[in-house]
Amino acid sequence: MKTLEERILRDGHVRPGNILKVDSFLNHQIDISFMNEMGKEFRRVFADKHVTKILTIEASGIAIASITAQYFQVPIVFAKKTKTINLDGSLYTTQVNSYTHRTTYDVVVSKKFLTSDDRVLIIDDFLANGCAARGLIDLVEQAGAVLEGVGIVIEKGFQDGGRELRESGVDVRSLAIIESMSDNNLVFRDQD
Amino acid sequence: MKTLEERILRDGHVRPGNILKVDSFLNHQIDISFMNEMGKEFRRVFADKHVTKILTIEASGIAIASITAQYFQVPIVFAKKTKTINLDGSLYTTQVNSYTHRTTYDVVVSKKFLTSDDRVLIIDDFLANGCAARGLIDLVEQAGAVLEGVGIVIEKGFQDGGRELRESGVDVRSLAIIESMSDNNLVFRDQD
Repeated sequence: MKTLEERILRDGHVRPGNILKVDSFLNHQIDISFMNEMGKEFRRVFADKHVTKILTIEASGIAIASITAQYFQVPIVFAKKTKTINLDGSLYTTQVNSYTHRTTYDVVVSKKFLTSDDRVLIIDDFLANGCAARGLIDLVEQAGAVLEGVGIVIEKGFQDGGRELRESGVDVRSLAIIESMSDNNLVFRDQD
Repeated sequence: MKTLEERILRDGHVRPGNILKVDSFLNHQIDISFMNEMGKEFRRVFADKHVTKILTIEASGIAIASITAQYFQVPIVFAKKTKTINLDGSLYTTQVNSYTHRTTYDVVVSKKFLTSDDRVLIIDDFLANGCAARGLIDLVEQAGAVLEGVGIVIEKGFQDGGRELRESGVDVRSLAIIESMSDNNLVFRDQD
């Protein structure tokens, strides 16, 4: 998505450790009208999919998932990060490693809100090593739901998550894929 | 807002400890088309305000804040809960007690995204004792921004947060105010 690549070049900042800061429009301050453009693009990209629910993970996936859901006219469910152990069996639970925060979360979704009737589109702001996406896919599989695809705003194409997911047959579409990045040079993968 | 009261009566569940579970449409699974109705209502209720930014707190405020922002045509900023100490002075920081989780969070907003030029509408899903709202107001004040109002989806009117904020001059509007609740009886405050 050309306008996203331009926005990343204009407003993104590369930080040591392969960190791309896009907190002026994507994951701290959020440009809602730009989210609408991206939501429409996800609808276009996944036009042939029959989606009944959008699944994301708190916190930074919620805004783009909510805005995108308007174009699919479906509810969203956001998976919750928790340290609480699931004692009563009412939750699907998976584990996600966070490299940024150097910790492992339990990530949960209530069994009430993800069922074998659902056809799920996963939406998230970033894809790098793929831990969060694989965790969400695990929740979809536990529910016996159909995974229709994974829509990502920014994929770090130089990390393995996207490639591994695609090789395992998941339909991953990223609005921008960063092929390489350094202090003053960002290269995007050509997706045309 | 009559449709919200009806939805709470239909889909809400009262749990011990004054917990109202509305996770089927508000804060786990999210009915986005209903969020749109509430976003329009916030626009109507705050029609006379000049708002440049909507401020909320992660995670469950993000969906309603994002959808509402479309009707004000402004960006949102979500305050982040963190355990990391702010060493470089780039963040406004406040503390919020969570009764639900029996802990105290540092809550932060980047100084880049809240400034003395901003006129802020705070949006959140719940107001009970008012700790989160007071924390967000503290961040607005630290930034020297103008607080235009506080918009809440569900206020627990039997707790003190809303009353205290209104007595201190804050324009708090809640789409539904619960006057009292018990296992099988929810009473709403008449706001007409």
